Amino acid sequence: VPRYDTVSFLSDYGLVDEFVGVVKSVVRSIAPDVEIIDVTHDIAVHDVRAGALALARSAQYLVPGVVLAVVDPGVGSDRRRVAVEVGDGTSVLVGPDNGLLAPAVALVGGATRAVELTSPEHRLPAPGATFDGRDVFAPAAAHLCTGVALTALGPEIDPATLRPGVIGVPQLDGDGLAVEVLWVDRFGNVQLNVGPEDLDVLPGTADRIGAVIEGRSRSARRVSAYAELTPGELGFAVDSYGLLALVLDQRSAAAELGLTAGQAVTLRALEGDAAPAGSSTSVELRERHRP
Amino acid sequence: VPRYDTVSFLSDYGLVDEFVGVVKSVVRSIAPDVEIIDVTHDIAVHDVRAGALALARSAQYLVPGVVLAVVDPGVGSDRRRVAVEVGDGTSVLVGPDNGLLAPAVALVGGATRAVELTSPEHRLPAPGATFDGRDVFAPAAAHLCTGVALTALGPEIDPATLRPGVIGVPQLDGDGLAVEVLWVDRFGNVQLNVGPEDLDVLPGTADRIGAVIEGRSRSARRVSAYAELTPGELGFAVDSYGLLALVLDQRSAAAELGLTAGQAVTLRALEGDAAPAGSSTSVELRERHRP
Amino acid sequence: VPRYDTVSFLSDYGLVDEFVGVVKSVVRSIAPDVEIIDVTHDIAVHDVRAGALALARSAQYLVPGVVLAVVDPGVGSDRRRVAVEVGDGTSVLVGPDNGLLAPAVALVGGATRAVELTSPEHRLPAPGATFDGRDVFAPAAAHLCTGVALTALGPEIDPATLRPGVIGVPQLDGDGLAVEVLWVDRFGNVQLNVGPEDLDVLPGTADRIGAVIEGRSRSARRVSAYAELTPGELGFAVDSYGLLALVLDQRSAAAELGLTAGQAVTLRALEGDAAPAGSSTSVELRERHRP
Repeated sequence: VPRYDTVSFLSDYGLVDEFVGVVKSVVRSIAPDVEIIDVTHDIAVHDVRAGALALARSAQYLVPGVVLAVVDPGVGSDRRRVAVEVGDGTSVLVGPDNGLLAPAVALVGGATRAVELTSPEHRLPAPGATFDGRDVFAPAAAHLCTGVALTALGPEIDPATLRPGVIGVPQLDGDGLAVEVLWVDRFGNVQLNVGPEDLDVLPGTADRIGAVIEGRSRSARRVSAYAELTPGELGFAVDSYGLLALVLDQRSAAAELGLTAGQAVTLRALEGDAAPAGSSTSVELRERHRP
Repeated sequence: VPRYDTVSFLSDYGLVDEFVGVVKSVVRSIAPDVEIIDVTHDIAVHDVRAGALALARSAQYLVPGVVLAVVDPGVGSDRRRVAVEVGDGTSVLVGPDNGLLAPAVALVGGATRAVELTSPEHRLPAPGATFDGRDVFAPAAAHLCTGVALTALGPEIDPATLRPGVIGVPQLDGDGLAVEVLWVDRFGNVQLNVGPEDLDVLPGTADRIGAVIEGRSRSARRVSAYAELTPGELGFAVDSYGLLALVLDQRSAAAELGLTAGQAVTLRALEGDAAPAGSSTSVELRERHRP
Repeated sequence: VPRYDTVSFLSDYGLVDEFVGVVKSVVRSIAPDVEIIDVTHDIAVHDVRAGALALARSAQYLVPGVVLAVVDPGVGSDRRRVAVEVGDGTSVLVGPDNGLLAPAVALVGGATRAVELTSPEHRLPAPGATFDGRDVFAPAAAHLCTGVALTALGPEIDPATLRPGVIGVPQLDGDGLAVEVLWVDRFGNVQLNVGPEDLDVLPGTADRIGAVIEGRSRSARRVSAYAELTPGELGFAVDSYGLLALVLDQRSAAAELGLTAGQAVTLRALEGDAAPAGSSTSVELRERHRP
């Protein structure tokens, strides 16, 4: 049975209340030598999708061990609480079965086993059913660290029954590529769900794409660093996760373009912008209701 | 003399300035192997009551060791700086003697000893008298971890002289129960200073109480999980600390009801709502000046 | 070759995105036993000056070891990435060469050696050039902790070529002293770039200076603790870093005076306020464009 010495912890608990501190205290009361790394706790309240994306972006960098992830609008309902093993025990992800864990699990090769967290002796007694992070998930994560077997935490479940994540893939849409804003970071960079190779379906977009925002086309130049842009010039870059991002130099592209996570964008070649290599596309923004 | 390997740290320092980082650096400079768990640092500036409540909610979950708590509007005045031992040395709470520590101390069985932190050799030299967290409290906490005796930090004081906390108890008020909002959490749940057993004085409130807010009565249904509520339906639940909370499903009850910490509420049976078991009460909100 | 067991980490990454968690995960993947102390991550986006000042205020309190500091508006440009050794190896500061490290380096005695971080084998492979904190600075910091020699990270550079910081010194200005707001902290205290001894050039300011704000003079009384002030009375105190600060008791002096970091202030004796020892000065505020 493996032991783990690191818990990577992500939640929507925020840092104002004492939720995060209490969860960490519970983990270390059970597993005194474990190190806890905060991934982030400022996922927007109940925003499972944003939490799943943050976890997926982080996944390949996390220290092997236990990942404790809690964004759980259905706490107290019949949604399952699960531990999902990846890499034949390299790591275990603990959290609600609501799609939060799925993208990260997929990125690191898929689940090798999973259990539902039902074991009463691996929980804290709880007066109410509203703080599973403290009462169910933290104890499970800590017990795994100390060498408790995954299957001691509850019955095995078929990993194929785990709820999938809801991250869209780019879609061809006429002569354009319908993509989506995955993430707006603190600096206002706008990450899209599209990699540079996906642009191959749009010939002539190697150096320049355009942004059609609320019907208005804006041109974006491909750069590899923000500093290559002139002040106010819109660019697109391969970001630190290998995806395309709309960017400005030292300013927020999201604020400039009025973009937030979940918005749909269509990339297409710019009409009438006959660059030598036909290097132009446009970006069109539409509201899209999230799934 | 005991040694401690964990410092649980709560303050109103916020995370924008470097106060918290500097305090931790001081602790680890003196006690290199100690682990520091942040309970929270976003207690509202100078809000001793909110800090005391957060500490009390956390107390039973903290790793035994040293608790460092600093919400200290009277820094530099003649308020005492103290270390309060509980459980005959199981833990020691370090902070200002202004009521911040009192509720947590009471919850874990009361003080067994206390000292005033006057020892000059267990402080940092300080150019000004405005950062006792760094210069007085952090060194005291760290020295306790390394095995310095409590009584080496200053003269013993009578624990009975420690300033008490200011948490009200529910009061019968005519045919109602006058309670108080203790806490509004990140999710908008409204914790009251009343447990489910306190409702026994109001017959017929097992399943439903009402909320009279600014003279307007609202009915709240008892649930054990948010998800039992229909969209927009007001509920009350035993929360994760065993107290009653007014809640909505996936929305903020505090925002819906216009409630903030410190507001007074009167719970009473709803008139004219003849449920089979008489299961109705009402909640009436009044402004109350905090003590 | 020294080894280090502590990384003190400051950045403008904020705590909402997962940047900080990912950087820590990278550090601990390379150096599993290292402790990471967060100094702060809420430096305003791209505010090199604010980051440099926070680092300088913290410097003397940090645990000897590696300091990882990232406020890097020029990421991806040709600004250098450096590791700066101080105290002949007592500590090493890692970050961009943009003035961020300079004031802290100067405060602890100056650089004894420096290298440019060019070694490809001490970096992470990166799809984009926008997250040097993760891909360049964190690995460098971690490798230093594990005993990799400073000079293995890249070629030595002359410390004299490191970009200096931009902290002004007080200037005599007629019969006044032109100073600058260095920092407004969470509590609204207004730190000036002037120590108590600097007031010696303005005779009669031992007990009282005045504040001329937007042409309006306000008098400030010297105190050693906030609590010495009457409600609403403006004071000045030697703060916890040995500098003068404009303060109120339990209220924000910055909000009251409308002051923010970078604003210029002129201290001078108050006219017509003939205190026995001539104890009066005034403070005059002017907008000043930051360098």
